[in-house]
Formats: sequence, C-alpha cells, structure tokens
Amino acid sequence: MSNDALRRQVASLVVVRASGHASDRQRRYPRWELTNADLKRLLNSGVGGVILLGGTAVELQQRCRQLRHWAQGPLLLCADVEEGVGQRFEGGSWLVPPMALARLHQSDPERAEAMAERYGACTGRQAKQCGMNWVLAPIVDVNNNPANPVINVRAWGDDPTTVTRLTLAFQRGLNQAGVLGCAKHFPGHGDTAVDSHLQLPVLPHSRERLEQLELKPFRACIAAGIDSVMTAHLQIPSLDPDRPATLSKAVLTGLLRDEMGFDGLVVTDALVMEAIREHHSAGDAALLAFEAGADLVLMPEDADAAITAICAGIESGRIARERLNASLQRRQQALARVEDCAAQPIGPAMPEHQAGSELSLDVEQTEDRALAQTLVELTCESQGPSVAHRPPHTALNLIRIDGVLSCPQLPASAPALLLPEQAGFRPLIHHPMAVSIWKEDVWSKGDRSAPLALDRLGEGPVLLQLFLRGNPFRAGRDQQEPWAEAIDQLQACQRLAGLVVYGSPYAWESLRSLLEPTIPAAYSPGQMPEAQHTVMHRLFLADSAHPSTQGPGEGFTD
Amino acid sequence: MSNDALRRQVASLVVVRASGHASDRQRRYPRWELTNADLKRLLNSGVGGVILLGGTAVELQQRCRQLRHWAQGPLLLCADVEEGVGQRFEGGSWLVPPMALARLHQSDPERAEAMAERYGACTGRQAKQCGMNWVLAPIVDVNNNPANPVINVRAWGDDPTTVTRLTLAFQRGLNQAGVLGCAKHFPGHGDTAVDSHLQLPVLPHSRERLEQLELKPFRACIAAGIDSVMTAHLQIPSLDPDRPATLSKAVLTGLLRDEMGFDGLVVTDALVMEAIREHHSAGDAALLAFEAGADLVLMPEDADAAITAICAGIESGRIARERLNASLQRRQQALARVEDCAAQPIGPAMPEHQAGSELSLDVEQTEDRALAQTLVELTCESQGPSVAHRPPHTALNLIRIDGVLSCPQLPASAPALLLPEQAGFRPLIHHPMAVSIWKEDVWSKGDRSAPLALDRLGEGPVLLQLFLRGNPFRAGRDQQEPWAEAIDQLQACQRLAGLVVYGSPYAWESLRSLLEPTIPAAYSPGQMPEAQHTVMHRLFLADSAHPSTQGPGEGFTD
Repeated sequence: MSNDALRRQVASLVVVRASGHASDRQRRYPRWELTNADLKRLLNSGVGGVILLGGTAVELQQRCRQLRHWAQGPLLLCADVEEGVGQRFEGGSWLVPPMALARLHQSDPERAEAMAERYGACTGRQAKQCGMNWVLAPIVDVNNNPANPVINVRAWGDDPTTVTRLTLAFQRGLNQAGVLGCAKHFPGHGDTAVDSHLQLPVLPHSRERLEQLELKPFRACIAAGIDSVMTAHLQIPSLDPDRPATLSKAVLTGLLRDEMGFDGLVVTDALVMEAIREHHSAGDAALLAFEAGADLVLMPEDADAAITAICAGIESGRIARERLNASLQRRQQALARVEDCAAQPIGPAMPEHQAGSELSLDVEQTEDRALAQTLVELTCESQGPSVAHRPPHTALNLIRIDGVLSCPQLPASAPALLLPEQAGFRPLIHHPMAVSIWKEDVWSKGDRSAPLALDRLGEGPVLLQLFLRGNPFRAGRDQQEPWAEAIDQLQACQRLAGLVVYGSPYAWESLRSLLEPTIPAAYSPGQMPEAQHTVMHRLFLADSAHPSTQGPGEGFTD
Repeated sequence: MSNDALRRQVASLVVVRASGHASDRQRRYPRWELTNADLKRLLNSGVGGVILLGGTAVELQQRCRQLRHWAQGPLLLCADVEEGVGQRFEGGSWLVPPMALARLHQSDPERAEAMAERYGACTGRQAKQCGMNWVLAPIVDVNNNPANPVINVRAWGDDPTTVTRLTLAFQRGLNQAGVLGCAKHFPGHGDTAVDSHLQLPVLPHSRERLEQLELKPFRACIAAGIDSVMTAHLQIPSLDPDRPATLSKAVLTGLLRDEMGFDGLVVTDALVMEAIREHHSAGDAALLAFEAGADLVLMPEDADAAITAICAGIESGRIARERLNASLQRRQQALARVEDCAAQPIGPAMPEHQAGSELSLDVEQTEDRALAQTLVELTCESQGPSVAHRPPHTALNLIRIDGVLSCPQLPASAPALLLPEQAGFRPLIHHPMAVSIWKEDVWSKGDRSAPLALDRLGEGPVLLQLFLRGNPFRAGRDQQEPWAEAIDQLQACQRLAGLVVYGSPYAWESLRSLLEPTIPAAYSPGQMPEAQHTVMHRLFLADSAHPSTQGPGEGFTD
C-alpha cells in the first residue's frame, strides 16, 4: 500500500474539532476550533470525523452539509449534546441535566425511565435533523463524589443501578432516532475531585471495587449494544500502574475488548485535555492511544502530527496492520448503521414554494417542547412561603454565575432577572470579572464569617440566586465561595428574602438545611431560561397561605 | 372592492418586526418580535414587509426564505444594518460607525468617499445574499449636537457637506448591490439631546435654519434617486405646531412630497417608539401617519389595529382611494427595482455535491474583510508611549460597557480582555448590574471629585477602557458618569496605566485632553473585536522609543 493510501486510512480515524458557525470570525474558541481552510484541507485529505460546538441549529444544518461536501467519504459528525441539542446549539431543546432524572428515579422510577427514553429520542432526532450522526452521550459515570468537578450533574445518578437503568432508557431513545451513541468515560470518571481538563486524576480503587461500581453501567450498555465507548483520562494503578486509561493497553484492550467483550468503536476523550497534553506530544498521545486499542482519536492537538505518528507506528511494524484494519472496519460498520444521514439531504428541504408546507426551520417539535417543560416542572423543588413584593428597586436580586460573557443562561430577557425586577428587586450579578461582593478578609485571612461586604450591596432585602453546577475548567473555585456563611449573615440581619439554586443538588441540599422556615427557597437542576421561569413563578406566586415543601413530581404549571 | 381585498391592500403597506432567528424561544426581544404563528398569519393575510433583527447571516438566509414562503406576494425584507450586516447579524461584516469616515473626510476626503462607497456596496451585497432587499440606511441626519443620545456616531458627519458627500457615496454602493436604500430620519434628527425611543423631542429651529442644515442632505439624496425616506418622531413647531413629523401632513406631503419633490417610498420610523406610543393608540398612529403622507407604516404596536384603522379611514372617505393607490404603486415600483431577490433562490445554493465548489457559507468575502480591517486601521488613533507589561494579575483592566449580557462587543475571547491579560492586567468589568466602582457620594451628594471607590478595585495600575457611543434607550445616563474626574483621580495617585475609548469621538477628545503626556492612550470609533485587536496592539506594542501621536490615516498593520 502506498504511503498516501495509508495516510488516508489513518486520517479517517481522526476526529477534529470545528465550530458550528459558518465563518472563522464567529468561532468562540479559536485556540481549539480549526479554521475553515484547515478543516477543508484535513477533510479533503481523509480526516473522518468532526466534533462540533456552537452556533444555532439552523446554521448547523448548513455547516454539516458543508463538511460533508468537503470530505471525500462519509463522515462521523458528533457533538457533546449530553443535555439535548440546545445545550450546545441554540434553537435545539435544552433539557435539565441527567442528574435531575436520577432524583426523580428515587420516587418514581418508571416515570424517570420513560422520561430518559424520551430524552434520548429527542436528542437523537434533533441531532440527526441538524446533520449529525453520532451523539456523544450517555455519560455512564457513577457520580458518587459530590465534589466531582467535571461530571457532577452530567451523570445519570450516583449509584450504579440508577445510572444503568436510566442510561439504557436513554440509549433506547437514541436508537429510535437512528444516530450512534457513546458510553463515557471508560472505566468510570465519577469518583474524582480532580478535573481532567486541567490535570490527570488518580483513582486508588481496586479491581473489585471497580467491578462493584464503575464498570456495572458499562457492562450493561455493552450488553445492550452501545455503538461506542469513550475513554477517560484517569490513572488507575490497579489496572495499569504506568499509563492513564486512554493510553493503556491493559484497560482498552485487556479489560474493555477482551474481558468485557466490547466490539464497537473505542474513541478517546479529547487528547488536548491537560491530563494528556502535559505529559505527551500530539503525535505520541495519538500513537499510544491507538496502540492501546482506541479506534478513533478525538481532538489531537495537531491532527497532522497524530496521523504521521500512527502511520510511522504501522510502517515500523510496532502496530500490526490488522489492528488498523479492525478499526477501519468498526468505523465502517458504525457508519453503515446510520448511513442514510450521508446519503440523503439533511434537515428540512428548502424549496422556494412548497405547497401546503409549514417550511418550519424549528428543530424543536411540539412534543420536544412539552418534554423540556415537563422535565423542568417535575424536577423543580420549593419550600417556604412566597417572596414578598417590594416597591421598585428597594430590594436586591443577587445572582451568582460562573461567567457573564457569552452566557446562554442569562440573556437580557432571562426570567431570573425580569420577574424579580417586577417584584421590586434590582439585579446585581456576581461573576469573576466584577467588583467582589466579598470582604477582603475572606481571601487574605481565611476569615469566612460574615463574608459579604454589605456596604457594597446597598440597602434592602436580598434574593440570592446561585447558578452552581460544578462546571469543568474551574479548578474547584466554586466550592471555596462562602455561600453558607453568607446565608447565615443575611439571616442574622434579617435581610435574606429568598434562596434559589440552579444546578447542583449537593449545593441545594446543604444550603437549604441552613434556612429558617420562613425563608422562601427553590431549586431547579436546570439553569436555562425555562427553568428560571418555573422557579420564579413558584417563588413569587406560591400560595403564602399554605407554605409547603414541594418535592419532585409535585410541580404545577403556571 | 370587497372589504377583504381592501384589507389585503392596506396590509401590504405594513412592515412588522421579526427576529432573524428560527424559533420563538430564540427571540431576544419577545415584547417587540412577533411569534412565528403571528408572523405566518399576518403574512398570509397580506402584510407586505418585515424588519429583521438578530441571528446569524446563515440563519437569516433560511429565515428570509421562510418569510417569503409564508407571504402571498413579494415582500420588502429590511434591517437597520447601518454599520454593515454584521452589526445586526453575526457572520456579516461589522464596520466602524459612519462618524469614523466623517473624521477621515476632514483629512482625506477622496479616500473617505471611496470608502463610503465600498461601505455601501459591502452592506448591500451581504444584505441581499442574506435574503433582504431593503437596507434602512444611510442616516443622513447631521449630528451637530455631540450630546445626541440616539444618532451620534451613527451619523455620517456633523456638517451638511460631509454628510451629503459621504451618504451619496454610500448610496452609490448600495445601488451597485441591487438593494433599496433609505435616507433617514426626515426632516433631520441630528440636533436633539432627547431620545425619541423614550420621549418626543422638540426642535425649535426656523424653516430657514432647517434649509441651511438638516434638509440639505435629504435634497441631495432625493436628487440622486434615493428609494425611500424614513420619517422622524420629532416635533418641529416651525413646520407643524400640532403634530410630530411622522404624523404631519405639512411635513410629509407639504414639504417632502410637494416642495422637495420626493416620489419614492415614505416609511415611518417604528411606531412603537415612546415618542409616538405615549400619545397615540396603535390604530390612530398608523392612520395619522398614512393620512399625513407615509406609504408604509413600520412596526405598529398592533398590526391588525393599524390595518383596521387605515381601512376605516379609506372606507369613510377620510382618506382618498387615490392616496392608497399611489402608495401601492410606489411599493410595487420599488419592488420591481429589486425583484430578482424574490424571483430566484436567495443565498448560496446548497446541493449535496457540487463539483469544484467551495460551498462557502460565509457572506463576508475576502474584499469585505479587507475593507473592515482597513476602516479600523484608518480610523484608529493613539498617543503617548506603549503600556508597560506587568507581572501577572498585578494590574487592573477596568472596562466600562453599557451592558454585559448578550454583548457582541465582548465575547469571552475579546482582545480587550485577552491582550491586557497577557500583559499582567486582570479584567474588571463595570456595567449596570455589577457592584458599583463609584463612591456613594457621587450619587447621594453630587460630589464628583475623586469618584472611584479605590478600595473596591484592589492594588496596581489601572488601564481604563471605555465602550461609550451614545446608544439609544439610555436616557443620557452615560454622560452622568464622572470619567473625567476618575482620570484626574488615577493620575493624581499615579495609577493610570492607559486610556482607551471605543465609540464616541466626543468622549475621546474631551478625555484625552486631560491626560499627562506620559499616559498611553488610544481610540477607535468601532467597538467590535477587530477594533479592539488593533487598538490593543497599538497600545501594548507601540515603539516606546518613539512616542508619537498617530492620527487617522497613519495606522499600521500588526
């Protein structure tokens, strides 16, 4: 075989990252997202997959057509749409995070599983309508560590049984839609307090413990025919003392292929993540992952270097050609299961005049909308009376959020802003680029008592709204913020008008326990505007004559 | 003629507002933007025009197809893309505001006029490629009032000659592209300190003064064959003691049609603006405007009420049928000049495999990109030495911006954030929803001396970056902020590391005059990331051995 033919074969096993936007200038992460010129060159030279992020659903339809056009053969087009297409692409359905269904599963397992199946069907159908054929979900990690900075509410539960039941249901939904799924992150990323985007976590667990917990949902997904498995950038000495799972033959070939019998696609997690990148060059990382047993390498820091390194490994005989052929065959089999995506035009047809047609551009159907709203209502919780209305601007709506720039949770028309405003609460947003709301002593002396610099906040009662969900890339900074002490401080001076948590059930459970019974409070696992709308209506319109705790499943429609 | 036929005719003269996004949920201004259900119903019942805002250029192509499909006949599709399509639709070219070219016109009139023509050609071609056929530009108001809260840098100058020459050039560019243009806001909105979005401004000028100043550019545009003129919501007692221009027969018919001889389309400014809305119901405003001489009514608060009111006026004989017929004919004539837009598919064709094609989705061509960059470089100004680099996080990058939510000027990757960060400056954003940077005494006692609450800002030198351009809807709040005093305060304690103004030349001129000669400073009329990039490179990489003032036309490429 010629060198060029080998390069094309190897290139087909590389998945590169692109923005879902049409133009280079629109890229939100230019460091990681290829330019159109590079994308076109790489696809033309045989690169076989693209992971997409950003843009609108309508724009993505056109973008996927463009990428297919640039490629020479069928493409794997994927995205991390773990919480619905709307999580990454505006206009798609943005669903509450999976952990919300795990909470519902405790009280109503049948309903939770039915919802998880619809969750998968909605995500898969919209992904396909946008032009993709591979959904990088479900996460099957068991999030038994509440301090987990990278999985957290993305997980389908904190015990293996719940995770297994819900992810199998999700997978059934995906299958109905005709897109590929992906169980991640093998062998299990749920029990770490370290973010692998920033450094390599080490898991001290024995093989026995892994069998009891982490591996269970993977075994079930494999038995149910999951199309692909994504590797974790985790060091697990009991499985391999030398290499992280992504680069470990013992883990990928020994455990996943040979022992667990998985014969689908094995894809690495993004090789640009610091857990890998700080220890290995782009070429080395790709070569080691492929040698260990991965079929596809995702987001190598340098796609050309990755292809060159794997080719060199094959040409030198270090890796057998049969290994390459097996990976190529697995990729083709996966594509064959969803080949209609490539064969026919994607998305709604766009003739100028189509008799009787709605010519809908909306990928979100009425049933999707109903699903998204039902999930919000079923998983919203509240307690205490309603929040009292005040004269305009006499009270404070203090919102805590990870970042305020390019923030889809908080458009100018966000219910978390507008509804309190109508009730007299002026907005104040706490974010990392604002003047701090904290006293200097919190950070300089570690004095966390009465931490709020109240002189900076002005007068009046304070409604506290915390958007907190354990997002990656934050190195645990969220957990250092003294919100418990701030709640004590506001209660001590009778200035706490209410508490809302959007996102983390762990934060909600620990903070609600501090509240006096007269303090209105509410929680939604979702952070999107629809979740805010439901929470705000509960908080401001609850019947104050009947203060009560409304748990999951007791939601009402406004 | 049947009542229904009359309603359809009248409806064709109404222009309603829609988001450029595909789905209702994506609307940024749900109060003003119709739902898809309402849009479809109104277009189906004959509404003849849509003004669009928001979304991406690629999404807008599909959106325009959809609107044409819903309509029964040809549509006027327009947008306020005064500063390039990218000002309103992501992915289009976002150009420096027109006032920048007026400054260039002082030193190099030929170059400025050539640039204005390319500005019009770029805007027109991209608007057409997105599916529109009518650009609501140029603004021909003479901005001779620096405190103007609504026109300001949107104007093509502050004297009638400059405005005339540049807007004629812009109009030539639009004509080349084959879209309709619009001279606004008749009879001239440049000399007011009141924002007509919020209340009705009164202009005390005599007819003679109007002839000398405000009317000159309109006369020139009409002589050059401008397609449409937009009315101003201004009370001008010397022309009509009773009615604002938009609703005045003396102004629209007496002055514009009869005296000035304009026979193109007269369109109102948006009737939902408070200058009209607080005095007139939706039906009354539309009826009065049409009776006064407007052909098209833009954004009535209630399109059905507007249609009903005008129909009633015609049926009762208050308005002659000939008046209606003349407006219908003018609309048809305008559409005929751009009819190819409606007759053939809009935007790039999208076949799955088009041999040899780039399948580009990008509406911004290489020449547009070069124009945008040249305009930034030609209009950027700087003075003083370069900013010294500091150890990480030891200096402060204090950014002032109108609002931080959904803010296209300030994505997370904005050069105004990233480049100072690399030089040791940590970002701090001053916006209306953050903890204030000002001492309480500024507002409570009117004490503007040393107004910054330095204890809230932390230690270190301060780079001040002010995004200030006199945006509407702000009721003059910008001008109350004590930036001059803040600069004095920082200079007095030797903490001013540099000053940048993005937007208003008036703010730049007045603040730069306060600076000690050792303080680095720079200005761009543009606020977009490309302008920030150029300014930041000038500020941080200027040759400190040769401190110099670089005015318009002396720019360099980095």
